[in-house]
Amino acid sequence: MDFDAVIHNGTLVTVDDRMRIIDNGWIGIHKGVIRTIEATAPDSPPPTAKKTIDAVGGMVMPGLVNTHTHLPMTLFRGLADDLPLIDWLEEHIFPAEARFINPETVRWGTLLACAEMLLSGTTCCCGGYFHEDTVARAVAETGLRAVLAQGVIDFPAPGVPDPARNIAHARDYAQRWKGRSRLITPSIFCHSPYTCSDDTLKAAKAAADDLGLIFQVHVAETRFERNRSIKEKGLSPVAHLDRLGVLDRRTVLAHCVWVDDADITTINRRGCAVSHCPESNMKLASGIAPVTEMQSAGVTVSLGTDGCASNNNLDLFGEMGTAAKLHKVATFDPTALNAASVLKMATIDGARAIGLADNIGSLEVGKQADIIVMDTRAPHLTPMYHPDSHIVYAAGGGDVRHVLVAGRQVVKDRQLLTLNVQEIMDRVNTIAQEIRLKSVLSVK
Amino acid sequence: MDFDAVIHNGTLVTVDDRMRIIDNGWIGIHKGVIRTIEATAPDSPPPTAKKTIDAVGGMVMPGLVNTHTHLPMTLFRGLADDLPLIDWLEEHIFPAEARFINPETVRWGTLLACAEMLLSGTTCCCGGYFHEDTVARAVAETGLRAVLAQGVIDFPAPGVPDPARNIAHARDYAQRWKGRSRLITPSIFCHSPYTCSDDTLKAAKAAADDLGLIFQVHVAETRFERNRSIKEKGLSPVAHLDRLGVLDRRTVLAHCVWVDDADITTINRRGCAVSHCPESNMKLASGIAPVTEMQSAGVTVSLGTDGCASNNNLDLFGEMGTAAKLHKVATFDPTALNAASVLKMATIDGARAIGLADNIGSLEVGKQADIIVMDTRAPHLTPMYHPDSHIVYAAGGGDVRHVLVAGRQVVKDRQLLTLNVQEIMDRVNTIAQEIRLKSVLSVK
Repeated sequence: MDFDAVIHNGTLVTVDDRMRIIDNGWIGIHKGVIRTIEATAPDSPPPTAKKTIDAVGGMVMPGLVNTHTHLPMTLFRGLADDLPLIDWLEEHIFPAEARFINPETVRWGTLLACAEMLLSGTTCCCGGYFHEDTVARAVAETGLRAVLAQGVIDFPAPGVPDPARNIAHARDYAQRWKGRSRLITPSIFCHSPYTCSDDTLKAAKAAADDLGLIFQVHVAETRFERNRSIKEKGLSPVAHLDRLGVLDRRTVLAHCVWVDDADITTINRRGCAVSHCPESNMKLASGIAPVTEMQSAGVTVSLGTDGCASNNNLDLFGEMGTAAKLHKVATFDPTALNAASVLKMATIDGARAIGLADNIGSLEVGKQADIIVMDTRAPHLTPMYHPDSHIVYAAGGGDVRHVLVAGRQVVKDRQLLTLNVQEIMDRVNTIAQEIRLKSVLSVK
Repeated sequence: MDFDAVIHNGTLVTVDDRMRIIDNGWIGIHKGVIRTIEATAPDSPPPTAKKTIDAVGGMVMPGLVNTHTHLPMTLFRGLADDLPLIDWLEEHIFPAEARFINPETVRWGTLLACAEMLLSGTTCCCGGYFHEDTVARAVAETGLRAVLAQGVIDFPAPGVPDPARNIAHARDYAQRWKGRSRLITPSIFCHSPYTCSDDTLKAAKAAADDLGLIFQVHVAETRFERNRSIKEKGLSPVAHLDRLGVLDRRTVLAHCVWVDDADITTINRRGCAVSHCPESNMKLASGIAPVTEMQSAGVTVSLGTDGCASNNNLDLFGEMGTAAKLHKVATFDPTALNAASVLKMATIDGARAIGLADNIGSLEVGKQADIIVMDTRAPHLTPMYHPDSHIVYAAGGGDVRHVLVAGRQVVKDRQLLTLNVQEIMDRVNTIAQEIRLKSVLSVK
């Protein structure tokens, strides 16, 4: 077979059903799809191809899938830290969004996020924000794969000054992007059950269903949210969403920190996926999601970084390490969330959560060639007994050397091929300078 | 004044008493000591020097101080994960140490650890292991500053087959290194109150006192340890050590996860410092140390990575991010351990813990020039509103560009000047291959 590209001389961490690790293997890619995965035989080296990528003994693995983020919020990275969620949101983030979020700033914030994600090995993300048409156009320039949702909230929002138009706006966006791009899938994102009315939630879900799209919602992020829901509606946030009929296998629930056994049963019965964002939940002191309980019940739990204002980076390697360690100490069980299971959360389970498990999330013949090559020639990755342990406990996004999405190489030797990173950083720094000068916030 | 070196064109994060941040400043260094720290005046640029380091707009900060680690354990990085502490220690680490730890392996494991630490911005570490004379000689080659302790345990140990000789062995080592090197300070490290008898603990502390050295001990790491101490001795591990008279301002207590209010009062009254190792405590599911309570009581709490077998890296930037986020979620207080306080833990509080606060831990005139320069020209560090936020929440060891210890540049443009990193990795990989082949452990 003729290959467009061959990756060879690496340890293949497939994350397939058998979690196969091939010590010295090669991958043949044709038309953006993985066509061959094999151990390299001494007497039969990999075939030549138009492009040959030498992994020089490093790890070759599926690109990471970040299932919860808000791309343009890179603009607010580190703007307001060490604050309670409600103060952070209502006194800092919402005002900054109202004042500084517009198509121009959204474009540059999104490009910055994509640069950061691709350079740190994330090849697919799922999330939502406002001005999503601008977000989607920017992401399309970068070569990243994404599920991108227009945000829906019952308050005036950037680009949607009249909340009565929020569903129509989201539907228009989703229709415009449905089937338009091979890499970008539209979606609709209701902010939360406490910022969206029952009618809004139902209408948004109906719009997503009409178009066969993923519906996203933040839910049960804080104890405050849960208590208020129980007090005002007599139901937990999850039970409330279930009563509205918006929970099914095309619904992604972000956070699910404050869920009880009944909620977990509901989530599992409806087939919803959960996006677990440990670093954001820790930084905002929201709580620790019962990930092991959800997984034991059968729920697909994936990983998200959340936006840069509450993390403050988009490095999914860091998120893996944090998740693996956090749930061990939270359950007093050092066998909880072992390396292999966390690696799955950041790859195949992420793909499953957003409806793309047939196409991405593992290195398997027939899947899209969303592949990253890790450089392991570094003191902090020496020696290597178990590749999956290194991926979760020792590596970072900075160890990513090459990145392919749908067979297209977008990062080569740690450099982005699709974007002018310096220009993006310059533009974002200019925007940040304006935020710094004009903001009423206590910015140094 | 004539300077040997000048660092300019950077944001100086001083970590001095006022936590001054100088947006565009310069540092003059002479004979290994910081002689000038100033804002750069447009009409009076920094003087020239034999060596000029351009920080190109990045952050210039004190080198990080890792107050608890076991250098040669890099050899076991990722060898045995996702196991209970007792199994991990007794079934994997102790047997591997008995079989594979010797002066030759200790030397290469130590060099690897130093390479990793220097490249990720740690300029001083404190810890202990066995064959410590070999460790100290290796560290001395690297240019790292260190407090290095011979380990004491009441079992046969690598290099100390007869436990009756453990104190004499430690004393000999400490005497040999006392005053021998400008950068290396010897110390004595009792493994723990459950592996050392009362007599051993008292004799080790007496030996350390005789020589005016830091005494180190693991204490109250697990609930099991605490419960056993209460059951067998009628005292908590800390109270037991206090009764033996080994707690004072030259004692560094590693972990202190399972300490109650009375223990904290004791620790504070005796003036002991604590080395908090959040990632190790999380990974081994030991628990979450009451850091905010200890700090409120007045205890100096510093940061340690612990050894590479339970982390699995030596990146103190990652440890800062984890500490800041862990204690927020553990206390449900998002204002706990803010960025500035965590930055202090990894620098000046670390220096204070190990008795070196007069010399290192901050950028101040008269202190040793232990300085790191961070490259902030990267998507994940753009934009920058607050330098301390970036250090704790967004940066990683991979962002360190230059490193100086006592004025000597040991890392330049991310490359080690003092060590042949490739040779070290090759030697460790050879050792690891032997461990892999001969080990009875379940190594792939």
